[in-house]
Amino acid sequence: MNIAGRKTRSLLTSRLFGARPEQPGSPPGTLTQRGEGKVERPKLTIITYDEAAFEEREIALDQAAQYASVGRTLWLNVDGLGDVEVLRELGRIFEIHELILEDIVNTGQRPKVEEHDDCFFVVLKMIYGNRQRDDIEAEQVSLIVKKGVIISFQEREGDVFGMIRDRLRSAKGRVRKTGADYLAFALMDAIVDNYFVVMEQLGDQIEILESEVLEEPGTQTAGKLHALRTRTILLRRSIWPLREVVSGLMRAESKLVHKTTLAYMRDLYDHTIQVVETLETYRDMLSGMLDLYLSSVSNRMNEVMKVLTMIATLFIPLSFIAGVYGMNFQNMPELTWRWGYAGALALMAAVAATFLVFFKKKRWF
Amino acid sequence: MNIAGRKTRSLLTSRLFGARPEQPGSPPGTLTQRGEGKVERPKLTIITYDEAAFEEREIALDQAAQYASVGRTLWLNVDGLGDVEVLRELGRIFEIHELILEDIVNTGQRPKVEEHDDCFFVVLKMIYGNRQRDDIEAEQVSLIVKKGVIISFQEREGDVFGMIRDRLRSAKGRVRKTGADYLAFALMDAIVDNYFVVMEQLGDQIEILESEVLEEPGTQTAGKLHALRTRTILLRRSIWPLREVVSGLMRAESKLVHKTTLAYMRDLYDHTIQVVETLETYRDMLSGMLDLYLSSVSNRMNEVMKVLTMIATLFIPLSFIAGVYGMNFQNMPELTWRWGYAGALALMAAVAATFLVFFKKKRWF
Amino acid sequence: MNIAGRKTRSLLTSRLFGARPEQPGSPPGTLTQRGEGKVERPKLTIITYDEAAFEEREIALDQAAQYASVGRTLWLNVDGLGDVEVLRELGRIFEIHELILEDIVNTGQRPKVEEHDDCFFVVLKMIYGNRQRDDIEAEQVSLIVKKGVIISFQEREGDVFGMIRDRLRSAKGRVRKTGADYLAFALMDAIVDNYFVVMEQLGDQIEILESEVLEEPGTQTAGKLHALRTRTILLRRSIWPLREVVSGLMRAESKLVHKTTLAYMRDLYDHTIQVVETLETYRDMLSGMLDLYLSSVSNRMNEVMKVLTMIATLFIPLSFIAGVYGMNFQNMPELTWRWGYAGALALMAAVAATFLVFFKKKRWF
Amino acid sequence: MNIAGRKTRSLLTSRLFGARPEQPGSPPGTLTQRGEGKVERPKLTIITYDEAAFEEREIALDQAAQYASVGRTLWLNVDGLGDVEVLRELGRIFEIHELILEDIVNTGQRPKVEEHDDCFFVVLKMIYGNRQRDDIEAEQVSLIVKKGVIISFQEREGDVFGMIRDRLRSAKGRVRKTGADYLAFALMDAIVDNYFVVMEQLGDQIEILESEVLEEPGTQTAGKLHALRTRTILLRRSIWPLREVVSGLMRAESKLVHKTTLAYMRDLYDHTIQVVETLETYRDMLSGMLDLYLSSVSNRMNEVMKVLTMIATLFIPLSFIAGVYGMNFQNMPELTWRWGYAGALALMAAVAATFLVFFKKKRWF
Amino acid sequence: MNIAGRKTRSLLTSRLFGARPEQPGSPPGTLTQRGEGKVERPKLTIITYDEAAFEEREIALDQAAQYASVGRTLWLNVDGLGDVEVLRELGRIFEIHELILEDIVNTGQRPKVEEHDDCFFVVLKMIYGNRQRDDIEAEQVSLIVKKGVIISFQEREGDVFGMIRDRLRSAKGRVRKTGADYLAFALMDAIVDNYFVVMEQLGDQIEILESEVLEEPGTQTAGKLHALRTRTILLRRSIWPLREVVSGLMRAESKLVHKTTLAYMRDLYDHTIQVVETLETYRDMLSGMLDLYLSSVSNRMNEVMKVLTMIATLFIPLSFIAGVYGMNFQNMPELTWRWGYAGALALMAAVAATFLVFFKKKRWF
Repeated sequence: MNIAGRKTRSLLTSRLFGARPEQPGSPPGTLTQRGEGKVERPKLTIITYDEAAFEEREIALDQAAQYASVGRTLWLNVDGLGDVEVLRELGRIFEIHELILEDIVNTGQRPKVEEHDDCFFVVLKMIYGNRQRDDIEAEQVSLIVKKGVIISFQEREGDVFGMIRDRLRSAKGRVRKTGADYLAFALMDAIVDNYFVVMEQLGDQIEILESEVLEEPGTQTAGKLHALRTRTILLRRSIWPLREVVSGLMRAESKLVHKTTLAYMRDLYDHTIQVVETLETYRDMLSGMLDLYLSSVSNRMNEVMKVLTMIATLFIPLSFIAGVYGMNFQNMPELTWRWGYAGALALMAAVAATFLVFFKKKRWF
Repeated sequence: MNIAGRKTRSLLTSRLFGARPEQPGSPPGTLTQRGEGKVERPKLTIITYDEAAFEEREIALDQAAQYASVGRTLWLNVDGLGDVEVLRELGRIFEIHELILEDIVNTGQRPKVEEHDDCFFVVLKMIYGNRQRDDIEAEQVSLIVKKGVIISFQEREGDVFGMIRDRLRSAKGRVRKTGADYLAFALMDAIVDNYFVVMEQLGDQIEILESEVLEEPGTQTAGKLHALRTRTILLRRSIWPLREVVSGLMRAESKLVHKTTLAYMRDLYDHTIQVVETLETYRDMLSGMLDLYLSSVSNRMNEVMKVLTMIATLFIPLSFIAGVYGMNFQNMPELTWRWGYAGALALMAAVAATFLVFFKKKRWF
Repeated sequence: MNIAGRKTRSLLTSRLFGARPEQPGSPPGTLTQRGEGKVERPKLTIITYDEAAFEEREIALDQAAQYASVGRTLWLNVDGLGDVEVLRELGRIFEIHELILEDIVNTGQRPKVEEHDDCFFVVLKMIYGNRQRDDIEAEQVSLIVKKGVIISFQEREGDVFGMIRDRLRSAKGRVRKTGADYLAFALMDAIVDNYFVVMEQLGDQIEILESEVLEEPGTQTAGKLHALRTRTILLRRSIWPLREVVSGLMRAESKLVHKTTLAYMRDLYDHTIQVVETLETYRDMLSGMLDLYLSSVSNRMNEVMKVLTMIATLFIPLSFIAGVYGMNFQNMPELTWRWGYAGALALMAAVAATFLVFFKKKRWF
Repeated sequence: MNIAGRKTRSLLTSRLFGARPEQPGSPPGTLTQRGEGKVERPKLTIITYDEAAFEEREIALDQAAQYASVGRTLWLNVDGLGDVEVLRELGRIFEIHELILEDIVNTGQRPKVEEHDDCFFVVLKMIYGNRQRDDIEAEQVSLIVKKGVIISFQEREGDVFGMIRDRLRSAKGRVRKTGADYLAFALMDAIVDNYFVVMEQLGDQIEILESEVLEEPGTQTAGKLHALRTRTILLRRSIWPLREVVSGLMRAESKLVHKTTLAYMRDLYDHTIQVVETLETYRDMLSGMLDLYLSSVSNRMNEVMKVLTMIATLFIPLSFIAGVYGMNFQNMPELTWRWGYAGALALMAAVAATFLVFFKKKRWF
Repeated sequence: MNIAGRKTRSLLTSRLFGARPEQPGSPPGTLTQRGEGKVERPKLTIITYDEAAFEEREIALDQAAQYASVGRTLWLNVDGLGDVEVLRELGRIFEIHELILEDIVNTGQRPKVEEHDDCFFVVLKMIYGNRQRDDIEAEQVSLIVKKGVIISFQEREGDVFGMIRDRLRSAKGRVRKTGADYLAFALMDAIVDNYFVVMEQLGDQIEILESEVLEEPGTQTAGKLHALRTRTILLRRSIWPLREVVSGLMRAESKLVHKTTLAYMRDLYDHTIQVVETLETYRDMLSGMLDLYLSSVSNRMNEVMKVLTMIATLFIPLSFIAGVYGMNFQNMPELTWRWGYAGALALMAAVAATFLVFFKKKRWF
């Protein structure tokens, strides 16, 4: 089990920690350029809107500053955290604390909310089922909520905010009429709503596995159970702290969050609780299924043993009788009897019948 | 286990989530029309009463408005949530917040109470045993408690409020003399009282299964245990949050709840605790029964093994002796002895007796 | 497992719920006459005392009123809850709230204390071992503590208050010098003291079972373990809430409880904690004993398997050798050898010795 | 399991409850003379000291009063609780509440601290390993801490306070310079320090057992594991409440405890936490060892099964072939072939080789 | 299991307790010289710095005093706790309370923070994987944080503070610009950062073991699982209390900690939570892996049993038939039949085929 000399990070480790600085003792707030070779430039997209106007475009880094003080609500979305320089520059433009920037880059954060003087910093996990690999993937989404400005950082392109963009574009619903705090809520709501999708997928898998356990448990079943349990354990790490995040936002008495948004936050909190409880229910069910599986393995072994025992118990005494009359003693009177053979067969039948009655009485078949 | 492409919702998923919007990111407070084809119109029933008068009738949607401001206590019951337009119209008439309407329609809510400025919103689960399918069914009941008005929303027709209607009609008891808050209590009390019925059914099933485990555990027993455990897990989700709901109502310092009703709320709270504790007791008992079942499976396997071992151990050496004297060597002096055959039989008897004594000493029979 | 149509309540159900109204939705505070046929009249006994005087007698219902306002401390004990009319009349005389009367009659209450304006209402479980049936029985005792008046309701005659009556009669100790609150404490103390007796009985049973598990575990042992665990689970329901009851009384800042009585309440609280912790210790020990039992079952199966394996492994190869020389080929040179038979026996001995050495090396015997 | 009629208390019962009054309902605060026959008189030892003087002597009961009001710090140690009269007299001299006296005599108390108007009453368990019986024994030590006076009650002679007496005699350290509160701390500290000794002994036993489980688990191992687990369960009862005791003393804002002593109390609290956590670690480790033991039992059974299966599977088909050619049909052409016998042997060898390859492929050996 | 007479401390004991005084009852705050023979002198290293200047050198004990009141921030690092005199002298120079000195020497402390009037005393565990022994080692690091002075005590040379020294030397980052409180944070941060390294190593080992459990579980696997679980249990003792330590420092309203450092403390707290949760996740995963392992052992036994059962069930009846026709009765008509032998073989084939169909139906192969 000696692991000295391993260089590549294992899957578990990276799933649990995400990216982290290698060197203990390095100063906090330092943004270290990760990876080798060419750096992938982040993609910056801005959406500005108020009740009347709406603008959406991809921008270059040097254009970001000019949007920082636009009068309308600004949503700056950053896809890709590979280029440290870009983050540092954004930090300078939007006055983001270096520790926040470090948390954004180190994608192994647990979900949390931090209230700063002029902003909220929210870390969430966006989770979606990867249908190709039949696995669940998590991506860290960091939100900075300032007065009139939302900045969201994602590890990769592709997110669950499509419908929000649609609502912004089409001016449907309340989202264009309200400020940055409602947009922040909407983003978090979309992430949590997507948890339900993941939860339903997981629930379907549990149900399929449950019928497998009940109907035809095989040697693979234990491995599948284990895989699902590991998945709930890892999901739990992402989802459990969410309750504190949302309740932290509800309790925060900040001017950044309007009172009307609080009602929506309470709704979001209800959803979060529901996801957390569903996960706990899954854990209970998987644990029950393991018990069921183990007792089913025992039962099958019992059945195998019974078959062996019945056959062996039935025939071993008969073989013994045959063996006796196969002995070559010169003086064996039975061998010369007229009904000797028939008698021996009858004896065997009687013994077999006795055992069958015994098994019947024991309810073995 | 890949579930991509499944379209129909599984039983587990729908039991856990009820109906939910499909699309993450859709705006909160949006009522989406569920299902295809023709919409089943909800059935609206009103009961108005004061100490002197009583009226009960089924109404059409457009009649609802005229009852909204009747002087007497009004109980409007809505059976069926399929038609979103009706709910929207009721929301408009009785000034119900859009988030509340959304919660009413999405029947996967956990039991909760929300205190709003002018009303309480209570979500409960009505649970009843379905005798045909030998299963337990849950139906979401949402109550809106306003000054002088109770609106109750149910998924289907048929409820546990029959006796309350009788008491209202016959002016028996305190229910006609008191206001909407007492009626709300009475409705919740009827729901919780029915939990006891479900609990007794569950307790009976547990008891029947317990004697099965003790007396003749079969291969089906583990599955039955699992089914009962799953049932308690799912019941727990409906019942556990109830404590918070009732204690939330007790602590609420609202003008909507009279002080005299609070004493009844405390009674209801006691009942709720009792249900919750009974469920926990069931869990403990089912877990103990699983242990008992597993040890019984082990014991039966032990017994099977013992039978096999005794028979095999007894006859294998005897067969060996018979085999020896069945060998065809020309020079086997025993074969020609006068008492050779009898001696061999005696030897066999001696060996068998030795083993029987050994088994007896080991207390194997 | 379909239980539809069952009419009689199972033991478990009645143990958990006691008597309860059948019909959900029936109004709270309604006293329904239970049972059919003739009603057993409750037995009313009063004891009045002050430091100087003492009176004890059985009374009829219509005499109760005249004692309600006697100057001395009054203890009215009611044995039997079958006649609802009597309770209603007592409720009228002593001004007892209808919800309290309902709780007294429905004997499935969990232990609790309720502080009302002019009285405390305490529900306790009196537990005693039934030596005939080797079981534990619980009886609900309800206490109403008013200024100068204690009313106690019991399900059946026979209680653990004998020594308190003796102390009252003989004017020994502090009980005659103090008021109703101290008498209430003394009654509760007698009930809790009796828990120790039950606990000791349970402890003795656990100890006897522990030596059975250690020395000669049989197939009945698992059932006995299960029975004891179920007993602790049910006891827990009666005893666990007791802590809240006593601490509730300690914290209550009521004029009904004198400061000097509070010191005794603290003592009672200590005893309650001790009972609760003992029960938890029993649970831990029973759970440990189950593990021990299961490992002992496994070990015995191991032993059985070893015997089978050794015998079979020893003789099957020997039988094979005998079988080979029992073949009837015409051309088998060994059969005609002079030492053929002896050689075959020697070969068998050598094979057997090899296996015995192998088993010895494996430490199988 | 009927225990009716048993008179003697079992070991478990007495270990859990210590001595307790037999009769429920007996008045609190009553000191009942326990045991029959002659009463063992307690041994009273006093130590009085201040910074300058020191006196230590055994005294008779009637001398106690004259020391009650000596100017110096007084430590009165009472060994033996058998004589109720002595305790009553001491209670009279030092004004000890009757409930405290009762707690001192009933040695089944859980560790606790009670703050009274003019004194602290502390109950602790002194635990020491009994090397003769390889068991752990507990003795109740009660401390009464008054202004300038410490009274300690022990069940038996012999304690862990030897070094404190030495420090008092030799005027070393701070103990002579400080008051009764520091002495109380020192006594408690000595008791807790001794827990570490017991913990180390337990740790050594766990470690020895761990290597037994890992290297050569036998049928006795499960019993030893169970014994150690029971020991931790019983120790937990004595040690767990200690945290509350010490933190209770720390929080008490009494003039009896000087501020300088509080720093030492905090130190003691740290030690207590350490003992509690060590015990929890032991529980976790023992639970892990049980899992290891069970899997080792399963593995050994697997190994036994494999040996049986290999031998049986190898030879049963061979015996069958030999059986076929041992049949006595007149018309069996193989029997007359020249190479018939050799061919049969070759066939057997081929079958055996096939099975060996099969086993090898299955990695059974 | 009697351990009387053992002199050397076991590994477990020393891992749990570290070094502790042997004699219960010895006065607190006493520094006892541990070990025999020559004492290893501690190595004292000082670093003094402000924004402009930096000095780093190893000093002798008598030089320490002159640095105590240098104007710049002073970091005195002590490697080795063997020489009690040196500690006593340092305690005198820097006015350290005797209880703190005792805690520094007794290396079995749990992580804690103590707030004193003029200093913080922090105890931490520095943990690093020992690659040679493939084990995890812990070393106690005690920090004393005074105004402008940090004193760190380590058991051995070698630590994780290398990068901090580099940052101090090179005046990089904020560490030279800030005071002693930030340095204290940096030291703690380096220790916690190193936990991540240990956690990743542990995670890698768990992952390697997981694939072993899934792919080829052997008899060693259970032992390895047990070793990893024990490691997590021991790590938990070191890491769990850390949360309280860091949150204690965050809440402390001391002038010693500047407000700007608090933000970094919050960052450290997040890291600590992350480590704690990762450890809990590991525990959950290891517990899941044990279940998987046990079910895999059961499955393998099942497979072995099936092979045995199939072979035995197939051949035992065939052998019986052969045995019948091997009997030596004179009157066995079949033996003389022309197709007798072929018929017997055909019968055998039919029986074998029947069983094969039976096994196929049971899905045994």
